[in-house]
Amino acid sequence: MGYNIVLIEPEIPMNTGNIGRLSLASGSVLHLVKPFGFELNDSRLKRAGLDYWKHISLHIYESSDEFFSINKDKNMIFLSSSAEKDYWSIDFKDDMFLIFGKESVGLPKSITAVNADKLYKIPIYSNHVRSLNLANAVSIVVYEGLRSIK
Amino acid sequence: MGYNIVLIEPEIPMNTGNIGRLSLASGSVLHLVKPFGFELNDSRLKRAGLDYWKHISLHIYESSDEFFSINKDKNMIFLSSSAEKDYWSIDFKDDMFLIFGKESVGLPKSITAVNADKLYKIPIYSNHVRSLNLANAVSIVVYEGLRSIK
Repeated sequence: MGYNIVLIEPEIPMNTGNIGRLSLASGSVLHLVKPFGFELNDSRLKRAGLDYWKHISLHIYESSDEFFSINKDKNMIFLSSSAEKDYWSIDFKDDMFLIFGKESVGLPKSITAVNADKLYKIPIYSNHVRSLNLANAVSIVVYEGLRSIK
Repeated sequence: MGYNIVLIEPEIPMNTGNIGRLSLASGSVLHLVKPFGFELNDSRLKRAGLDYWKHISLHIYESSDEFFSINKDKNMIFLSSSAEKDYWSIDFKDDMFLIFGKESVGLPKSITAVNADKLYKIPIYSNHVRSLNLANAVSIVVYEGLRSIK
């Protein structure tokens, strides 16, 4: 039993490092889709991921096209702050792919437009904040997935 | 309806910044207990908290003694990786205080020993990881609190 965490074009190495640690802790597979905003040997990524990085089940893709081509038959949901539905209503399934966009702008329209029925958001209770830190958002959704099937 | 996020002696400014953003997003009050591993005007804290810092409902305490003295009548639970019970079994209540220790070592024995019945952990599914990033851990627990009372 486990999930797949997918980061489309992540920009900030410490976030990806923390999400690597989360992937391992949660028993998830980590998929990283290029281009990245950093090099995979960035010391800030390794520091955030501590000593665990080498143990992560990790897949790297050269582009979103490659990712979607290889995984076209997978059960996917997409996280977007512009979604209508809360992530609490996700019907989590074993091996589901949980897909997150880049820190600055989230998922591109080219992805959200063709997956409109699979978009979910984390509810925000303030007018002063538009979104959460990416690693925090991934953590919330993945552990809700674990809770819901425990 | 809301929660209180309490960080006892936080060490890493970006974590506290991200938790500030989470506090606002989740409608929580943030309590920070000194000594800190940084100054409150640290640029890394403000950057992680973006423009939102000034909107946070924030309480600062000079020591754990001061915090527990002022809040002695509050409903508190404590997060510790050495706890027996999962956070999924927390009976969340409005205005509950969710208390987290420092990044390097968690909560001190002086606090966990006298609150043994109120200790909860986030389950970890790997032998290679002992704990999650602090901001990720806070995010998971606070949003489970919001989900459970929605």
